[in-house]
Amino acid sequence: MNKKQYYKRSFLTISIFALALNLPAQNLNRIQLRDYERVTERKVIQIPDLPGYVTLKGDFHSHTIFSDGHVWPEFRIREAWKEGLDIIAITDHIEYRPHKDYTIGDHNVPARIAASSAEEMNIILVKGTEITRSMPPGHFNALFLQDVNPLENDDPMAQIEAAVQQGAFVLWNHPGWDAQQPDTTLWWEFHTRILEKGWLHGVEVGNSGEWYPVVVDWCRDKKLTAFANSDIHAPIDFQYDLSLPHSHRPMTLVFSKDRTQEGVKEALFSRRTLAFTGEQLMGPEELILGLFQASVKVHLPYLTRESRGQTMIYRELENPTDLTFILERADGKDSKDNIRLNPHSMVILRQPAGQEKPQYRLMNCWTGSREHPVITLE
Amino acid sequence: MNKKQYYKRSFLTISIFALALNLPAQNLNRIQLRDYERVTERKVIQIPDLPGYVTLKGDFHSHTIFSDGHVWPEFRIREAWKEGLDIIAITDHIEYRPHKDYTIGDHNVPARIAASSAEEMNIILVKGTEITRSMPPGHFNALFLQDVNPLENDDPMAQIEAAVQQGAFVLWNHPGWDAQQPDTTLWWEFHTRILEKGWLHGVEVGNSGEWYPVVVDWCRDKKLTAFANSDIHAPIDFQYDLSLPHSHRPMTLVFSKDRTQEGVKEALFSRRTLAFTGEQLMGPEELILGLFQASVKVHLPYLTRESRGQTMIYRELENPTDLTFILERADGKDSKDNIRLNPHSMVILRQPAGQEKPQYRLMNCWTGSREHPVITLE
Amino acid sequence: MNKKQYYKRSFLTISIFALALNLPAQNLNRIQLRDYERVTERKVIQIPDLPGYVTLKGDFHSHTIFSDGHVWPEFRIREAWKEGLDIIAITDHIEYRPHKDYTIGDHNVPARIAASSAEEMNIILVKGTEITRSMPPGHFNALFLQDVNPLENDDPMAQIEAAVQQGAFVLWNHPGWDAQQPDTTLWWEFHTRILEKGWLHGVEVGNSGEWYPVVVDWCRDKKLTAFANSDIHAPIDFQYDLSLPHSHRPMTLVFSKDRTQEGVKEALFSRRTLAFTGEQLMGPEELILGLFQASVKVHLPYLTRESRGQTMIYRELENPTDLTFILERADGKDSKDNIRLNPHSMVILRQPAGQEKPQYRLMNCWTGSREHPVITLE
Amino acid sequence: MNKKQYYKRSFLTISIFALALNLPAQNLNRIQLRDYERVTERKVIQIPDLPGYVTLKGDFHSHTIFSDGHVWPEFRIREAWKEGLDIIAITDHIEYRPHKDYTIGDHNVPARIAASSAEEMNIILVKGTEITRSMPPGHFNALFLQDVNPLENDDPMAQIEAAVQQGAFVLWNHPGWDAQQPDTTLWWEFHTRILEKGWLHGVEVGNSGEWYPVVVDWCRDKKLTAFANSDIHAPIDFQYDLSLPHSHRPMTLVFSKDRTQEGVKEALFSRRTLAFTGEQLMGPEELILGLFQASVKVHLPYLTRESRGQTMIYRELENPTDLTFILERADGKDSKDNIRLNPHSMVILRQPAGQEKPQYRLMNCWTGSREHPVITLE
Repeated sequence: MNKKQYYKRSFLTISIFALALNLPAQNLNRIQLRDYERVTERKVIQIPDLPGYVTLKGDFHSHTIFSDGHVWPEFRIREAWKEGLDIIAITDHIEYRPHKDYTIGDHNVPARIAASSAEEMNIILVKGTEITRSMPPGHFNALFLQDVNPLENDDPMAQIEAAVQQGAFVLWNHPGWDAQQPDTTLWWEFHTRILEKGWLHGVEVGNSGEWYPVVVDWCRDKKLTAFANSDIHAPIDFQYDLSLPHSHRPMTLVFSKDRTQEGVKEALFSRRTLAFTGEQLMGPEELILGLFQASVKVHLPYLTRESRGQTMIYRELENPTDLTFILERADGKDSKDNIRLNPHSMVILRQPAGQEKPQYRLMNCWTGSREHPVITLE
Repeated sequence: MNKKQYYKRSFLTISIFALALNLPAQNLNRIQLRDYERVTERKVIQIPDLPGYVTLKGDFHSHTIFSDGHVWPEFRIREAWKEGLDIIAITDHIEYRPHKDYTIGDHNVPARIAASSAEEMNIILVKGTEITRSMPPGHFNALFLQDVNPLENDDPMAQIEAAVQQGAFVLWNHPGWDAQQPDTTLWWEFHTRILEKGWLHGVEVGNSGEWYPVVVDWCRDKKLTAFANSDIHAPIDFQYDLSLPHSHRPMTLVFSKDRTQEGVKEALFSRRTLAFTGEQLMGPEELILGLFQASVKVHLPYLTRESRGQTMIYRELENPTDLTFILERADGKDSKDNIRLNPHSMVILRQPAGQEKPQYRLMNCWTGSREHPVITLE
Repeated sequence: MNKKQYYKRSFLTISIFALALNLPAQNLNRIQLRDYERVTERKVIQIPDLPGYVTLKGDFHSHTIFSDGHVWPEFRIREAWKEGLDIIAITDHIEYRPHKDYTIGDHNVPARIAASSAEEMNIILVKGTEITRSMPPGHFNALFLQDVNPLENDDPMAQIEAAVQQGAFVLWNHPGWDAQQPDTTLWWEFHTRILEKGWLHGVEVGNSGEWYPVVVDWCRDKKLTAFANSDIHAPIDFQYDLSLPHSHRPMTLVFSKDRTQEGVKEALFSRRTLAFTGEQLMGPEELILGLFQASVKVHLPYLTRESRGQTMIYRELENPTDLTFILERADGKDSKDNIRLNPHSMVILRQPAGQEKPQYRLMNCWTGSREHPVITLE
Repeated sequence: MNKKQYYKRSFLTISIFALALNLPAQNLNRIQLRDYERVTERKVIQIPDLPGYVTLKGDFHSHTIFSDGHVWPEFRIREAWKEGLDIIAITDHIEYRPHKDYTIGDHNVPARIAASSAEEMNIILVKGTEITRSMPPGHFNALFLQDVNPLENDDPMAQIEAAVQQGAFVLWNHPGWDAQQPDTTLWWEFHTRILEKGWLHGVEVGNSGEWYPVVVDWCRDKKLTAFANSDIHAPIDFQYDLSLPHSHRPMTLVFSKDRTQEGVKEALFSRRTLAFTGEQLMGPEELILGLFQASVKVHLPYLTRESRGQTMIYRELENPTDLTFILERADGKDSKDNIRLNPHSMVILRQPAGQEKPQYRLMNCWTGSREHPVITLE
């Protein structure tokens, strides 16, 4: 006669959960059983647009079996679609091709194989390649190529020139990779030369599971476009657990005039990107501030209470996006007022009356190796 | 001065969780950031051995980019290692090779590429192929081949003969696949012929996301070895969410005299296998019963209580394995006494005195399309 | 010198993941270790507002230790805050109080204890009680009471009258609960009487882990407000795994003029609610249709392709909310075109030219026990 | 005619996953819908026994609504059962009872209420209380009391004496709690006095989300029993996400002669415990070493390979338990050979021939604030 008895009985004796599975098979021919299978759908990554720009999610560095990767080129499209990316570049090594005894040698093949699925799945496929040299000068991605084959050349400078002649965007990859720069992240004379020629346009702040703080300074001071890319060789799900809440591969946020290949190219050359890896965001201050403003809602106060002689004001801070923001008081007030604003979450802000416009430093956002943008909550 | 105040304060104001991430970067060259990356380790699947046999986990049906799969052959070894499999067969289609304009044509290449990693990772690699015909006779896997190329032949009977001449184990794949047998799972005259010649040794009860109850009858009546295989084309993590508790690809449990290729082959020809797909187990009764006995511990009673004029005995049932067992009373007693015994869990069994040896039907275990083995708890 | 070697080495030898944990303790006094602890934050449930109304998430049925629940009243506020609810009603049983030897008897105590935290956390706390009778008439919740104590009375009709005299909203709970209506979900003469008096305002379509299709018909035909409530006795996290993606307790969506107790009351009396339990939504057609329109974006076509003599149009369907929609073709066209539109996901719609405005039935939305609303995608 | 077509079709058009849910309701009375509900079962925590002892999992510090906790006493039993604990102590504050206006004052009530469920669920319930003083001397748990009420006394020394007179085990709680010892974890003169009287038997090395390295030294030098306890006030699932793989509350492993209250008491007085919090284990070296030996299997070599002029031996290391072990080379050899051996996982050990018996320091196991036990793999 009461819920308690019902509840208790179910607890104390035995489980009879999900007994539908117990039924004798009714269709003896075929039974679907998809307990552990993933659904075929595209994830919606919730990052807001900025005024005048659409926010596109791109990965500008990936490999396939045509160099030393583990997947067929078309599969990079499926992965990108599922994860909610808008842009994927395929950038197989020019020089390093351990599978070449088993595959054909035309460097244009990976993008050609992937093109049709990219169209069908509405993914912007960027045709590229990775120039693969020991340091200096290291590795570079050439993006938006028409023909990759002319980049086969023993001289890295000639390779970059061949890319630039096609209007390519040139990107220095993982400048702080320990296999090439063990204890340092140095800028070499080679890079000065191509920068001065206008042949170097961007650099990876983040690559796979690491990032290089000093490179954020380079982006700021040398006017380079900031990237975070996966440099993925394995299937993306093998390396990243994308089932974790809010997990994602390292990616580059591109603030583009439209969702086209041309729009992306214009945005890259105009430095309208942020590197987004783990919870960290790196790049130009105005883009970070714009993203914060578009993401976080500061609600009106809902309560005023006296506490130990002080009037406390209660407000809510809401983050309905897939971004994280970590805030630290920047105006010399109570240092305990740090805030972790996780994706799809709200926190309560309880502050003394008269401090309604507190300033915070965005500790997971980087405009330099030691610089965080400062925002005012109001 | 008390925990309550501490607790309440942390709740009501704001989150200061994990503030270590807030620290200014100390190494400006390189920061590791592996929030969402998977660990490089092999899962231990906990399924007990049977007396005299080691229980090996195998997948006898997989594809690579050399037919219509999406991954490089060596990658099938890495996946198998990570998931905790002992055996993987690579079985690319003989006839269906959509990537053949880009790859070389020798059918022995996939196994050759994967061999070295299999050795290093202690995985038993079975060299095979898939004979790919419309119905009849459908698709067959030939396993333990020395040379795959002789199986290129327009006549399926000749293909099977060429396999058998090499001592191969021949397996009928997905007999109930709706693209070939839309509303039925029929046995054809072709299959009778190869069965009578001794050229058909096994059949897939389960394939990818489906299984075929009537095929369990075939295994029992025609003395065929039961399989569940993934028939995986994509990376395994793309299709299955192996982060879910106790999830796994469809696999075949092999009860082998030892952990060698020869042991596996002997076990397959001796029909010592169970198909294991989702939570379901299919195959010979003695193997299912053996596995239940080796898995589930019935603890001694720990409490006796009077309840509504009856003496109730309390016992615990413990399942420390990765298998699931669903039990339904089989002796005409109280039908509510159904039990779901999930992996790594215990339930309390509360039963009237005098019923200490209840009989249960294992509803997720199948010795035929309508048959479940019966066990006695004691 | 290349990523492949790096990658392979890390795979084949041993894991050196997360070695930060290996460091000798540097602070010998105290180390924070919060690996498995939950963050203190409020989840943002993403369900859009309707024109003129804010969409509030409420649970109008919960218990505390003052009847047969397991938690302290104030804790119901914390749970509701964390889960992202806007409204919680505490509705302890009037008649069933198994803990009464250990607690005081004033029925107004639970709401009084919870009030201060509700204010601090910006949760709308509804003071209520559960009238707890065997069937007929079963259990009722009286909501928005000023004083619960006058409802202590042996006559259920007098109890309801005492509630109505305070302006309460009266709700019939779990009418299909099998302990009270084993094989049926009957409407009794008692319910006709209170309905005719204007004393019955709503009914639970869903309660805890079950729902009652016929009750959706009652809501439509008898003008009753539809509810889904948790009827929670245990802590909410004990009964529901709220870490699962998009999981939530059974709740009632309230379309209110504002986020106040008065607004909620007006909305309930005006029948502007939907029951939301599991993936199912039940209630008035116009509210379901409004929610679908506010939730799902049909993007413009991005591709046209010929396929087997037909022109196929490719579009994307986007669901950035926490709702699920399951669509089945309703206009007699190709029946395979069913769509599962999970929370925060997109799917591709590929349809023949000339069928740009297909009609679908929302199969997980219920306007009656056998009725689903129909929408047109355009 | 091939799987590829099948696969591709399902990908490119639309999802028709799990359409069973689409079926019109067939039972109009009642539909079970348990998508997000937890199963009623007890988790099996896999930690091996030691020779002569059974390994019991206990939490010796918890609160209920009778002091400042949030749950009913009986609920602590349900939680402990579900999580797989063997022992739970209820230790409400003597002095701090913020709910006392609403509940009765007998300090024996919480254990009395919980006793029956403990019996039914086979949980060892330890009757205790928390003496709650500012520092010095701080908080103490008295365990295995017959009557809690005599401990109501203004003098902490008299309280402890009253406990000891009942044969109680006395435990100093959270000695490094920052509210009482802000920047230090000091041992005070009061503690010397009760230690010398034989009235202090144990100490919390770990409490809730923190632990105190220096306290491991105290355990070793002053012969105190080591504990890690949850000090839980909220429901356990509210504070810990026990759905995370291998997550658990802070607990004390007790190596007992049998699974009885008396056995537990004997083991505590004999110092046969390890604190187990997060991935860390603290306590006597012989217990840690015994647990490592009982947990980790070093398999025989399976491969020998030449690599760069060295003979490399391949072995597997298997950890089928729920414990974690982090190993760092301790014999001056290649420092990269660190190993993280997660629960239910294996890693490959590739080492030069002649180094088959490497020594490792167990970095997550603590025999002192700076001491780790050393093991030899063989």
